[in-house]
Amino acid sequence: MKLYDYKLAPNPRRVRIFLAEKGVSVPTVQVDLRAGEQFTPAFRAINPECTVPVLEFDDGHRLTEVIAICLYLELAHPEPALMGVGAQERAIVADWHHRIERQGFWAVGDAFRNSVPGLKGRALPGPDDYEQIPALAERGRARIARFFEMLDNELAGRDFVAGERYTIADIAALVTVNFAGRIGLAIPDACAHLQRWHAAVSARPSAAA
Amino acid sequence: MKLYDYKLAPNPRRVRIFLAEKGVSVPTVQVDLRAGEQFTPAFRAINPECTVPVLEFDDGHRLTEVIAICLYLELAHPEPALMGVGAQERAIVADWHHRIERQGFWAVGDAFRNSVPGLKGRALPGPDDYEQIPALAERGRARIARFFEMLDNELAGRDFVAGERYTIADIAALVTVNFAGRIGLAIPDACAHLQRWHAAVSARPSAAA
Repeated sequence: MKLYDYKLAPNPRRVRIFLAEKGVSVPTVQVDLRAGEQFTPAFRAINPECTVPVLEFDDGHRLTEVIAICLYLELAHPEPALMGVGAQERAIVADWHHRIERQGFWAVGDAFRNSVPGLKGRALPGPDDYEQIPALAERGRARIARFFEMLDNELAGRDFVAGERYTIADIAALVTVNFAGRIGLAIPDACAHLQRWHAAVSARPSAAA
Repeated sequence: MKLYDYKLAPNPRRVRIFLAEKGVSVPTVQVDLRAGEQFTPAFRAINPECTVPVLEFDDGHRLTEVIAICLYLELAHPEPALMGVGAQERAIVADWHHRIERQGFWAVGDAFRNSVPGLKGRALPGPDDYEQIPALAERGRARIARFFEMLDNELAGRDFVAGERYTIADIAALVTVNFAGRIGLAIPDACAHLQRWHAAVSARPSAAA
């Protein structure tokens, strides 16, 4: 098994933190996205979508979606559980994970990819070129402000995103918050619960992954 | 248990087809999205995100993400398996499901919500109003064309989206293709494999759900 990764990118970081929490290590290959290595014929043969992470099995099968990679790792290494225990809790964790991804992670992605000069003409990851849409960057920033409020409100009542246990939903939220920081969107001072949670999850050794 | 649904909306249809394939029925409440019922105080108390589907448990917990609702139903009613069997197959199905959702379903959503006159000022589902972005509608249409090509290419080599078995990834793809049809984006004649697959999955009784 092999993981294609890029240390500076937020999406593969979700997998790295997940692995660190599991205490599992997988041989890793760095794909230098800033140098355009994802567009080389060699990497396109591995993932025609030109994205990382990619988890490659010894039988040649490959996974390219973070959630699928983490699901495999959870099933292969059940302890500690990061995706819930029992049908209802697993579903609740999945619910939060998807909501964090949709409302948070992709919104930061919209704001980031549609505004930074280095991604002109590259507003979406993948093999196709799409022009930046400034209105979409602006919408992304507005959505992140709402996302911070929503999450702060939720965290007023519990320690972690999906309940009283650290899960994959916390990983997605941590990476989202730090990704937002890269475009100058910090957690507002008024969001004390979100600040408290962010300090706690950032203090875990896995956050260095 | 109770499912909040709206018969004309594509997202809850994913859950209805899933239930039909399982042979499971859940008491259902229709929420009339065209009449704005999702914005009433009564429904906001059920789901502040103002979206359907919502799966409500008897203990009051609620799930609002399609993938989470289907995960619960899969774990509670394992047969027939719609999300794979064994760690690797489950991960491969999840990989396809997310890819279909991200590249297909949300792209049609972008094209639909950013262009139809009835959704002016409502370019995203949820409690907040966002103006339509015409360039995003256009990008959505371009992405759907690429999505059809990609899926046609994949289906050249197998019967179903994630392998030789009908899964949740086929459900997401079927709903995506039919949703695209509502904005005039039909499967191109050149995509013979996709046409064949679409005819096969549309002929299943569950497609009427």
